[in-house]
Amino acid sequence: MSTPLDSGADDAAPPDPVDSPPASIASIAAEAGVSVPTVSKVLNGRPDVSADTRARVERVIEQRRYRRRRSRGSSRPALIDLVFHEMHSAWATEIIRGVEQAAAGERAAVVLSELGGEHRPHREWFDDLLTRRPIGVILVLAGLDEQQRGVLTTRSIPFVVVDTAGEPPPGVPTVGSANWSGGLAATRHLVGLGHRRIAVISGPTAIMCSRARVDGYRSALEEASLPVEANLVRYGDFYVHGGYHHGLDLLSRPNRPTAIFAGSDFQALGVMRAARELGLSIPDDLSIVGFDDLAVTEWIGPPLTTVRQPLREMATTAAEMVFTLARGERPRNERIDLATELVVRESTAPPPRGG
Amino acid sequence: MSTPLDSGADDAAPPDPVDSPPASIASIAAEAGVSVPTVSKVLNGRPDVSADTRARVERVIEQRRYRRRRSRGSSRPALIDLVFHEMHSAWATEIIRGVEQAAAGERAAVVLSELGGEHRPHREWFDDLLTRRPIGVILVLAGLDEQQRGVLTTRSIPFVVVDTAGEPPPGVPTVGSANWSGGLAATRHLVGLGHRRIAVISGPTAIMCSRARVDGYRSALEEASLPVEANLVRYGDFYVHGGYHHGLDLLSRPNRPTAIFAGSDFQALGVMRAARELGLSIPDDLSIVGFDDLAVTEWIGPPLTTVRQPLREMATTAAEMVFTLARGERPRNERIDLATELVVRESTAPPPRGG
Repeated sequence: MSTPLDSGADDAAPPDPVDSPPASIASIAAEAGVSVPTVSKVLNGRPDVSADTRARVERVIEQRRYRRRRSRGSSRPALIDLVFHEMHSAWATEIIRGVEQAAAGERAAVVLSELGGEHRPHREWFDDLLTRRPIGVILVLAGLDEQQRGVLTTRSIPFVVVDTAGEPPPGVPTVGSANWSGGLAATRHLVGLGHRRIAVISGPTAIMCSRARVDGYRSALEEASLPVEANLVRYGDFYVHGGYHHGLDLLSRPNRPTAIFAGSDFQALGVMRAARELGLSIPDDLSIVGFDDLAVTEWIGPPLTTVRQPLREMATTAAEMVFTLARGERPRNERIDLATELVVRESTAPPPRGG
Repeated sequence: MSTPLDSGADDAAPPDPVDSPPASIASIAAEAGVSVPTVSKVLNGRPDVSADTRARVERVIEQRRYRRRRSRGSSRPALIDLVFHEMHSAWATEIIRGVEQAAAGERAAVVLSELGGEHRPHREWFDDLLTRRPIGVILVLAGLDEQQRGVLTTRSIPFVVVDTAGEPPPGVPTVGSANWSGGLAATRHLVGLGHRRIAVISGPTAIMCSRARVDGYRSALEEASLPVEANLVRYGDFYVHGGYHHGLDLLSRPNRPTAIFAGSDFQALGVMRAARELGLSIPDDLSIVGFDDLAVTEWIGPPLTTVRQPLREMATTAAEMVFTLARGERPRNERIDLATELVVRESTAPPPRGG
């Protein structure tokens, strides 16, 4: 937020909020040299304020630690914003349903957005969010930059991140699942069946949960005194194509793995297709474990062994956390990982003889 | 809306809107004998008005043909409501994405609700909708009763139904797909491969699209001079279990069908599982056609022959229709069915010899 032009302002430390009266829209307006309606427009993300004025007002808001009071019982609709970096398939539906459930209990409506693959919301979306004045925001595999976090704080709009993409900054509440334990359980299951050459196909390295799953995999191999072979560890995206292409490559190798742990059920579907095309039978020639436990995995042939991720509960927990924060209370815990669970079906078996 | 208590009012015909000045909140308040804020509360679905007063005010609003003017450029957030009778899997995600896309172009946010399997929204949800004052409403496999439609009309909130459940009332705009043609194409494909005993598993008879698909099936059999056997025509729900149970039953019969046309891709997954359990190979022993063309169908084994339903385009079309209506314009067409298309993959083949 600091630019060469406003560096002088840093010298004058903002007054201690304990000693000075709390900032009001009027005091902000006076100090910024603008009208009260202009401050109100900035607070509400309205477009009809020049960039300069907006920046000046935001600076005063920040310095005076202004906190907008939440309006109660007003005629404004009660909204909670749910933001996906990308919505795909039943994975997203589960999260939506979890948020819907918690929101219904608070009689709030769910506003849904998709960032089209971006991990940070763009300016226009953010301004519209301020206009909506939701009770709070849930971000899925998406985050806010420091400035956006600051702006939401001054507007008293709490936010919670589900399945944080990068390392979450301090003070940002998150809900996830036990990804490392899930990777450990999936790989232990394969080791227990007798597999020795086990590959992993995970999501992008930039996403924390995909790294945690691979580390769980590594840990399970190490405890069984099995080597971690670099060429058996793959990172892609979480979609079917990633599983398919890595699957084709892994399974065409002379010393191919007898088992593959996929970072998502969709990747597992891709691996299954690669196996079919190469004439490999599942689970006789190849064992596959997925991740997520989407409803469809129970119905495909063969039904998929997978790590259940409690997506709906994760979403409900995140929404409840938002409502708690919006009431001005602290949630009992601001970093929650819900348990994952291995669900054994028919895509895993002991390795073929000589495998 | 007419009750014994207000039947007397029917005698006095409402004044011709051309002759009398347009109704205002003030004139409604005066005639109903309440204050202006009370009329405003009723218009906004606020709970703090007695049922009697609310009914009286609604009656006057209706009689005087009051139409709320849409506020433009106000500080209210631009919202469009998307309501599912039930959200399940990738089917819902496709529709959500289609609406998101159209809404982004209008810089409106999408409010998502699920009616938990009900086909009519309940009172609480409807009141909250009035409080939100969205630009418009899209209902998916859900409808509004006559009173709800009347209330939305007085508030100038347009609505469009996607995949109407029952017969849509006159004047209600709808977007669907060519279900009958889809059923015809699917069945013709199977007839063309040489199948003679073809079963159909469709959705509930109460839903128009499932009846249309069955009628397309019947028509294809009739043009091939094949009999329609009553016990080969099944209605269930659109989910996996329906396909599984009907599939098990159909395929366990002594004179089992050699092909099954399923009313949804999920039902087709259920039929595939039934076939696997009975040791029947697809497509050698049994051909299967689905309906929807969800992304997953391309990846399962064998990839599914299905009827593509342009869900995303249907949703975008419905949202654009809502925005057109909200601008006070008439859409070019208020009943639109988008084309379906047969996608031939590997789950269909000629029937087994002697089949």
